[in-house]
Amino acid sequence: MLAIGIDLGGTNIKAALVDREKGILNQTSIPTEADRGRNHVLDQLAHVAKDVAGNHDGIIGIGMGSPGIISLDRTTVSNPPNLPGWDVVPISAELKERTGWDCRVENDANLAALGSARFGVGKEISDFIMVTLGTGVGGGIIYNNFLYRGATGGAAELGHVIIDYNGPFCNSPAQGAIEGYLGQRFLSKRAWDIIKNHSENPLYSTFKDNHEDLDPLALFNAAEEGNQIAIDILADAGEKLGIAIVNYIHVLDIRKVIISGGVAKAGKYIINPAKDAALKRLLNPFKSDFDIVYEHLGNEAAILGAASLAFESLTE
Amino acid sequence: MLAIGIDLGGTNIKAALVDREKGILNQTSIPTEADRGRNHVLDQLAHVAKDVAGNHDGIIGIGMGSPGIISLDRTTVSNPPNLPGWDVVPISAELKERTGWDCRVENDANLAALGSARFGVGKEISDFIMVTLGTGVGGGIIYNNFLYRGATGGAAELGHVIIDYNGPFCNSPAQGAIEGYLGQRFLSKRAWDIIKNHSENPLYSTFKDNHEDLDPLALFNAAEEGNQIAIDILADAGEKLGIAIVNYIHVLDIRKVIISGGVAKAGKYIINPAKDAALKRLLNPFKSDFDIVYEHLGNEAAILGAASLAFESLTE
Repeated sequence: MLAIGIDLGGTNIKAALVDREKGILNQTSIPTEADRGRNHVLDQLAHVAKDVAGNHDGIIGIGMGSPGIISLDRTTVSNPPNLPGWDVVPISAELKERTGWDCRVENDANLAALGSARFGVGKEISDFIMVTLGTGVGGGIIYNNFLYRGATGGAAELGHVIIDYNGPFCNSPAQGAIEGYLGQRFLSKRAWDIIKNHSENPLYSTFKDNHEDLDPLALFNAAEEGNQIAIDILADAGEKLGIAIVNYIHVLDIRKVIISGGVAKAGKYIINPAKDAALKRLLNPFKSDFDIVYEHLGNEAAILGAASLAFESLTE
Repeated sequence: MLAIGIDLGGTNIKAALVDREKGILNQTSIPTEADRGRNHVLDQLAHVAKDVAGNHDGIIGIGMGSPGIISLDRTTVSNPPNLPGWDVVPISAELKERTGWDCRVENDANLAALGSARFGVGKEISDFIMVTLGTGVGGGIIYNNFLYRGATGGAAELGHVIIDYNGPFCNSPAQGAIEGYLGQRFLSKRAWDIIKNHSENPLYSTFKDNHEDLDPLALFNAAEEGNQIAIDILADAGEKLGIAIVNYIHVLDIRKVIISGGVAKAGKYIINPAKDAALKRLLNPFKSDFDIVYEHLGNEAAILGAASLAFESLTE
């Protein structure tokens, strides 16, 4: 069985033709060109879908990850940030008209979780919390092997869970939420605020003129070379993540956590301190079976999740 | 259809005969006498079940709320605090042997949520979060009209959700969790720490020799008389509750919150500031349909929930 998986971003549209058993058969990426307006982006989506489909038969339809608010029936997207002029778009109907295929849409972090559940480390885990650490912090919840969606489809805004009500703001009114510590821009800023006072540190000279590039991968590389300040910065970020994870687990009683996304590239330097911080704060019964693991699928998780959404919600 | 609902506490066992349509037909309460050991408590449970059953026919079985860890199949209780010597008790089998009735057991805060869903203000609400404010802070989650239980049945430890990782400890390792602000003993202590420095305040002279009695109802009564310090203390507690509620909602996308329990007696002086604090921090899409309401069923919620558990999981 085949489906088209699409990841709609503000900068690029990624798409793949996915076989339910074998995974991605072929994939491509084109610029979103969001500034040219919604009809152009819809045309781009239709174009990329037909492109990856090629001459294959038996394509069940399109699954798509999107920013913005998704309707509970997964056919409509409202007010996606970074896509100017979208307002409310009945995206399934628009794509059906342009391609002939049915389409279902879902929050992109939810699809990363679904992709992990069907094609990644989540395959063996019936209940897990996916935390995506990228520009923002997002998440998806897999409960009894399926997405937990909440009352209106908006569940798992994990980046906006507060760990210190007096803490820093991210881009939301939830002061002291974990995204304000671990969102990539916030983490880079926190890191530079420390390193700028350590001109003897190799990271100082490398990033003094472009400190917004001091990203998790740079910190990871420095940590691998034994840079103690980099290690400490990542450990502090990991501790904050561990505290947020305690909150997720105490609400959900789901004890497996899968980390994905760009910030997760800092790997063990974040994950091990996160584990320690969580184990220190979890109620006793929740400590057994608790674990944090890393999803290696990367960006493909969302596309595979998008195709999985099609497999599971559309029929030929 | 009839069932026996039991609320097993460390001090008292409350029980009622419940009609699925009409609610409680009759109820009673006897001392748990936990110090006399587990077999005695099991005998007490059997005794009180037979007592409320009287000569009624058509009793489907027993539903029971219990402290401790409940097995996923709802037949076994492990290590209930306040019930010495219990270890792991196959409580369904023990009660079947003593009474002939099948029995299912569940966490008491979960049953308060289920009772509200079937007999209380939750009847009209398909998705809600119940927060029980008593000696401790607990909770239950109703999702699509049924209890959300988590991977092992331990979901909704809402009192142990952290709002300030540097905050006070409650009786758990989750430093800065909401129970450390709103658990009755902690709230009383926080209140006295303020009032002890205000000897001109009427609450000072009333409680200077017994400040552990400075409970939410006393604060409510003072607030009703215009006592500004009492109003401020309750408003501060409400703000903290509102912050925790933001965390629940951002994880769950469930926007109706029902408050129950002793501390909730402080009513509007807690609930209104909680609403304000939550609205200030919630992501925009979650503000619509957000509300906090009060459950008036009181202790009966847990017994009605216990009977509902029997109605929904046992067959004649």
